[in-house]
Amino acid sequence: MISIVLLGAGNVASHLYKAFSKAKSITVTQWYNRSFDAIKSYQNETEVIDSLDKLKEADIYILAVSDDSISKLSKMLPFSDKFVVHTSGSVNIHDLDKRNKRGVFYPLQTFSKTAEIDFSNVPICIEAEEREHRSILKSAAEAIGSPVYKINTEQRQILHLSAVFVNNFTNQLYRIAHEISDAKNINFDILKPLILETAKKVEDMSPYLAQTGPAKRNDKKTLKRHLKQLENDQHKAIYELLTASIKQTHGVSTSSTTRKS
Amino acid sequence: MISIVLLGAGNVASHLYKAFSKAKSITVTQWYNRSFDAIKSYQNETEVIDSLDKLKEADIYILAVSDDSISKLSKMLPFSDKFVVHTSGSVNIHDLDKRNKRGVFYPLQTFSKTAEIDFSNVPICIEAEEREHRSILKSAAEAIGSPVYKINTEQRQILHLSAVFVNNFTNQLYRIAHEISDAKNINFDILKPLILETAKKVEDMSPYLAQTGPAKRNDKKTLKRHLKQLENDQHKAIYELLTASIKQTHGVSTSSTTRKS
Ligand SMILES: NC(=O)c1ccc[n+]([C@@H]2O[C@H](COP(=O)([O-])OP(=O)(O)OC[C@H]3O[C@@H](n4cnc5c(N)ncnc54)[C@H](OP(=O)(O)O)[C@@H]3O)[C@@H](O)[C@H]2O)c1
Ligand SMILES: NC(=O)c1ccc[n+]([C@@H]2O[C@H](COP(=O)([O-])OP(=O)(O)OC[C@H]3O[C@@H](n4cnc5c(N)ncnc54)[C@H](OP(=O)(O)O)[C@@H]3O)[C@@H](O)[C@H]2O)c1
Repeated sequence: MISIVLLGAGNVASHLYKAFSKAKSITVTQWYNRSFDAIKSYQNETEVIDSLDKLKEADIYILAVSDDSISKLSKMLPFSDKFVVHTSGSVNIHDLDKRNKRGVFYPLQTFSKTAEIDFSNVPICIEAEEREHRSILKSAAEAIGSPVYKINTEQRQILHLSAVFVNNFTNQLYRIAHEISDAKNINFDILKPLILETAKKVEDMSPYLAQTGPAKRNDKKTLKRHLKQLENDQHKAIYELLTASIKQTHGVSTSSTTRKS
Repeated sequence: MISIVLLGAGNVASHLYKAFSKAKSITVTQWYNRSFDAIKSYQNETEVIDSLDKLKEADIYILAVSDDSISKLSKMLPFSDKFVVHTSGSVNIHDLDKRNKRGVFYPLQTFSKTAEIDFSNVPICIEAEEREHRSILKSAAEAIGSPVYKINTEQRQILHLSAVFVNNFTNQLYRIAHEISDAKNINFDILKPLILETAKKVEDMSPYLAQTGPAKRNDKKTLKRHLKQLENDQHKAIYELLTASIKQTHGVSTSSTTRKS
């Protein structure tokens, strides 16, 4: 049995709480949050607290709080030599106060409070100073059905950066498509199956092999017409830059002229 | 019963052939391709031909051939006053020879020859000069289980442009994430659940509402670190441009300074 004390009550902490409390091999010993209101409705299920002085013994203390407050909160913990982890993709493991043994339990997924989360779709990237602690983190992740990856701080920060590309930036491309289709009274729903298929395609094919379209084919007529159709200068710039990036990846010369047959 | 003659044997034609031949209310009268090899294995199922002179009567002639050859092929058809459509997202309906009645049957999805296609995930955008013909196209699309949308040429070309953003450009962002994670020996598989979730999220939430991350939060510390981590100048430029685009969409001032609490 792994005992866990959870600190924080935001998106990540709330989903972790639900998953941990369902897992057979895990006990959530306590749930701490600085504001009590967010957790008080759980007081019949676990011990909810808003004072750090009340913290009890546990195998893992998980600080699922804002990046900026991880270091500060770790310094306020009233004990030493216990195992303390944060859940951030970007914060260094050494930002945790060194009085305790340190680790990271980073769920690489996008969380929002309302949507249900199936943790089998949430890879957990773990890091720990000691092998024994890494193995506890691995068991905790497996107990909620998550795939587990051993990752060091540099790799985790690169993953966090990669996540910005595949999540935030991709979503912004959806947004631009939404804008330009809306402007011509086109239902955005028409694009949704393509959005989903594009994501599914790279499940078992590399993005390199999955690429198609006018940039890869260097279809100058279409590229030119598309640029003409775009009314917003920033959209034009994005079109040009990503087209150049695709050409670069696929070795399409950017200066050559194509002859039409 | 709708009778169809299919012309072309590429990605789109092959998938349409399979779907049409399974549909109860559709007969594929003939399948034409200029090179016979691509279709000859189907000669026990339908009439396969490589000469336009042999073309028989049908309700719809579907030209599923390369964009560049649609106009030329339509001029070579040895008949007039029949109903001829192409399947392209970007070619004008008027590029079809005007001796025949014209239309478009554009499947908004990414096709590759190997992958199985479920046409319930392939929205068909239809256009026709005459209402009666539009209704035949609608029935043909419904017969293979596809959602149908009535779209004019301008809207179709904007959809095609939007498809470049949500398909080709999005896939290129996946590619960049693949490159930067590969460079640090990180398994790209870790990012796949996030890729899928990002696509699923906009099924029932607008991309505007789905946005999160350092650009939207104007988290300058993270933005700066990410830029430092990117080694490739083109990747840096893409990071900066898409970050600016997110800030613009969400009204984040690009000049303001944030104070850390
Ligand atoms: N959201 C995601 O998709 C996601 C994904 C992977 C990893 N993460 C990481 O997980 C961690 C938590 O993220 P989140 O999305 O759950 O954040 P969140 O929803 O904004 O919640 C933040 C939590 O931190 C607490 N907090 C903030 N400042 C504090 C302080 N000075 N002292 C004590 N508690 C404080 C807040 O308490 P109050 O309730 O009292 O305000 C709240 O419970 C972050 O490190 C984040 O990078 C997030
Ligand atoms: N692929 C997609 O994801 C997709 C999606 C939506 C719409 N579309 C549109 O569907 C159409 C077909 O695309 P595709 O991907 O199926 O193309 P494809 O796989 O490249 O196949 C092209 C077909 O056109 C034939 N062809 C080329 N030039 C010809 C000519 N001069 N005369 C007669 N036939 C000729 C080829 O015949 P041979 O076999 O003899 O070479 C081949 O059968 C295009 O308009 C495209 O824009 C494609």
